[in-house]
Amino acid sequence: MVSSPVRTASKVTQVMEVIRHRVDRRLLTPGARIPSVRAMAGALIVSKSTVVEAYDRLAAEGLVEGRPGSGFYVAAPLAPLRLLSAEADTDPTADPLWTMRQSLRPAGTALRPGCGWLPDSWMPEDALRRALRSLARDGSGATLFEYGPPQGDETLRTLIARRMAEQGVDVAPEQVLLTDSGSHAIDLICRFLLESGDTVLVDDPCYFNFHTVLRAHRAKVIGVPYTPTGPDLTAFRTAVEAHRPRLYITNAALHNPTGATLSAAAAHRVLRIAESHDMVIVEDDIFGDFESEPAPRLAAFDGLDRVIRIGSFSKTLSAAVRCGHIAARNDWIADLTDLRLATGMASSPLSAALLVSVLTDGSYRRHVERLRVQLARRRGRVLDRLGRLGIEAWHVPTAGMFLWCRLPEGSDSAEVARRALADDVVLAPGNAFSVSGNAARFMRFNIAQMDDVRVDATLARVITS
Amino acid sequence: MVSSPVRTASKVTQVMEVIRHRVDRRLLTPGARIPSVRAMAGALIVSKSTVVEAYDRLAAEGLVEGRPGSGFYVAAPLAPLRLLSAEADTDPTADPLWTMRQSLRPAGTALRPGCGWLPDSWMPEDALRRALRSLARDGSGATLFEYGPPQGDETLRTLIARRMAEQGVDVAPEQVLLTDSGSHAIDLICRFLLESGDTVLVDDPCYFNFHTVLRAHRAKVIGVPYTPTGPDLTAFRTAVEAHRPRLYITNAALHNPTGATLSAAAAHRVLRIAESHDMVIVEDDIFGDFESEPAPRLAAFDGLDRVIRIGSFSKTLSAAVRCGHIAARNDWIADLTDLRLATGMASSPLSAALLVSVLTDGSYRRHVERLRVQLARRRGRVLDRLGRLGIEAWHVPTAGMFLWCRLPEGSDSAEVARRALADDVVLAPGNAFSVSGNAARFMRFNIAQMDDVRVDATLARVITS
Repeated sequence: MVSSPVRTASKVTQVMEVIRHRVDRRLLTPGARIPSVRAMAGALIVSKSTVVEAYDRLAAEGLVEGRPGSGFYVAAPLAPLRLLSAEADTDPTADPLWTMRQSLRPAGTALRPGCGWLPDSWMPEDALRRALRSLARDGSGATLFEYGPPQGDETLRTLIARRMAEQGVDVAPEQVLLTDSGSHAIDLICRFLLESGDTVLVDDPCYFNFHTVLRAHRAKVIGVPYTPTGPDLTAFRTAVEAHRPRLYITNAALHNPTGATLSAAAAHRVLRIAESHDMVIVEDDIFGDFESEPAPRLAAFDGLDRVIRIGSFSKTLSAAVRCGHIAARNDWIADLTDLRLATGMASSPLSAALLVSVLTDGSYRRHVERLRVQLARRRGRVLDRLGRLGIEAWHVPTAGMFLWCRLPEGSDSAEVARRALADDVVLAPGNAFSVSGNAARFMRFNIAQMDDVRVDATLARVITS
Repeated sequence: MVSSPVRTASKVTQVMEVIRHRVDRRLLTPGARIPSVRAMAGALIVSKSTVVEAYDRLAAEGLVEGRPGSGFYVAAPLAPLRLLSAEADTDPTADPLWTMRQSLRPAGTALRPGCGWLPDSWMPEDALRRALRSLARDGSGATLFEYGPPQGDETLRTLIARRMAEQGVDVAPEQVLLTDSGSHAIDLICRFLLESGDTVLVDDPCYFNFHTVLRAHRAKVIGVPYTPTGPDLTAFRTAVEAHRPRLYITNAALHNPTGATLSAAAAHRVLRIAESHDMVIVEDDIFGDFESEPAPRLAAFDGLDRVIRIGSFSKTLSAAVRCGHIAARNDWIADLTDLRLATGMASSPLSAALLVSVLTDGSYRRHVERLRVQLARRRGRVLDRLGRLGIEAWHVPTAGMFLWCRLPEGSDSAEVARRALADDVVLAPGNAFSVSGNAARFMRFNIAQMDDVRVDATLARVITS
């Protein structure tokens, strides 16, 4: 049977698309040999002449070049790095970046139970406006105009070290490096410790930006199921032994998205396993200030030997004042400082001055105490409201803003999130947090972003429809 | 002849150090085979038994592991990424990071003719304090507390697009991405377009942070001699043809460190060569506002097709308000935005609001005009003062803060910089800017940082001593 010309043309295009896709996604890099005509014909179930025509056309475009007797090789330059997954073209909700973009859209009238921060009205507005006025009046020329010291403002580093001491982490201000944010801190550490292709352990589920930043580093990500007291220790040990990861990235205190808390026993076991396999741990303490009772810190047990502690004030003070930090061994801080200078100079002395001002005028502790009370008040109420919709918490956290919930049987949280957008309600579907993709029935809710009862109406509509 | 035991021990240590150094510098990565005993013995001119003992000791330490019949392999985890060169341990002044660290030390009583920015007293102090007061009074909750939109504040992006239009670069606000700084902009582009080992072209000399950021990306850097009208075009073509670089990073308008300006003819030729070899160009426009007469822009000729334009207000407005930008093709901006979200979330809306405030209250243009006058007034005077010390400008720039100068015969600028530190005078030795290392007699001076005549006394002392 002879294929019709149309059919052949579309098959040629199909072969071309397969190669183009692999080059676009850096699965084939410059100079790499593309599959032989025979292999490609076999794989796509097309004739060899179809593949030959496709390869010839790609060569005419300059994407590949033929070498007589040897095959075809990629001739195009390296494709730019795209983080959005190819699947996202058809189903964007499956991608953590989709959730990030949606959450960061200007609020307008949108409701955002899926976002990861508190409403503006909860934030220390008087204190920040006061800090701005005081900076306008008394800020030095260096604070207003200069790059600032390589490691960042010393007063802020001293305050951070003092606050860590209260959590049992013994650290000198010289061991603290200021970054532009918590995400920036993780990114710097990944650059410092990883190479493309290295393996990293994360919790399953975990904060979705751990996935995107690791995608930027082209790391191999292994998830370990998370339990209400920390990672599943058997699975953790098995994963460490099988994959020899260089790094384990996790939350301190209140785990995102589950709100669970690491037990002392789990902390001890995790550290023992890390030690015996020379694995470094990044402990992200960004939600620490929401705790009512301080949970065990890996950084405290370990004394910042193989644990690197990161944090920021984005969740409790302001996400607009960009400033995060890394606390680690002295020699690592020296090298991380060079890396941060080379890739973005030093942290803003102006941001540091604003934070120091709010952290030291006495209002911050009262503000954080108020946040805890407001969250505690809402937690039970939101649990009741969700319960009436058949949505159940996987775990009831003692503090923090998140509830990790199971939707009614048969629900697909990505589909639910898509439908909710029609009502301008931004949700956070479970699989954005899950490397295994087994959280399709889960969703993270932010109890501080659910005062408006329109959320319930939308949820009722989108879950049952 | 039999070596003494002491001598053998030190030779064993020497072999061990060679391997340790290669592992520390990632020249040998986990799983890599280390040189055979025979090869190592031959290379270091030691006996095979010395190498065997060294390898056995390294195996006992866990750094390598022997595989029977196959040799020794690296068993240690990947070494952290160190940017400071190994040579810097003995001669720090040879390293661009040394110059950066020195420049960023808190000023105190130090004089800094080597630094790359203007004194605080030259900066728009009233305007920035006014902007802070206005933000304290009228800033919205979103500006003070939220992450801000993924691409960054729209008003600032619109202002940047409008300013680029005045330079002949046609760009929509949607094609602008805000970053945390100009360095951050370059870093994002390198992550987007490069892989470890890729080749990048730079000017020789060029801004020293181009070297450090490319070191962070482990790029192969090729320098092209710079002339008063742009890169040496013959050398440029030869380098592009020989090395097929993915990227050429250069300055727009006033070249750092030489103060030279690209001619229209050179711009045209550079673009033609880039087009025929599918090379992307990053044009760093950070000194553009110092120009009296606008020089040709590669971004204008090319229409932001293969040219990516970056900039910031660190030099003319404030380095403490961290904010830079990238202007590029729409599809690239979309992917770069994802990359910036994944590695550090969005740019501060608070920083953007401060910049918008100063850029729109009418004071910025007057301020920049004043800067030009102040610099013009000093340029001739500083040239005279340097001339009396036997220091001559390689080129007399029409604008900007830099003079790239040749020291008297026999001078070594690194040695001069080291000696000057004793007087608390920070200089910028030529080889920090030069990939070929052929600028040992050169030095970059910042004419805005030389009002204090103690600089002349120190220079006189350290040059002739």
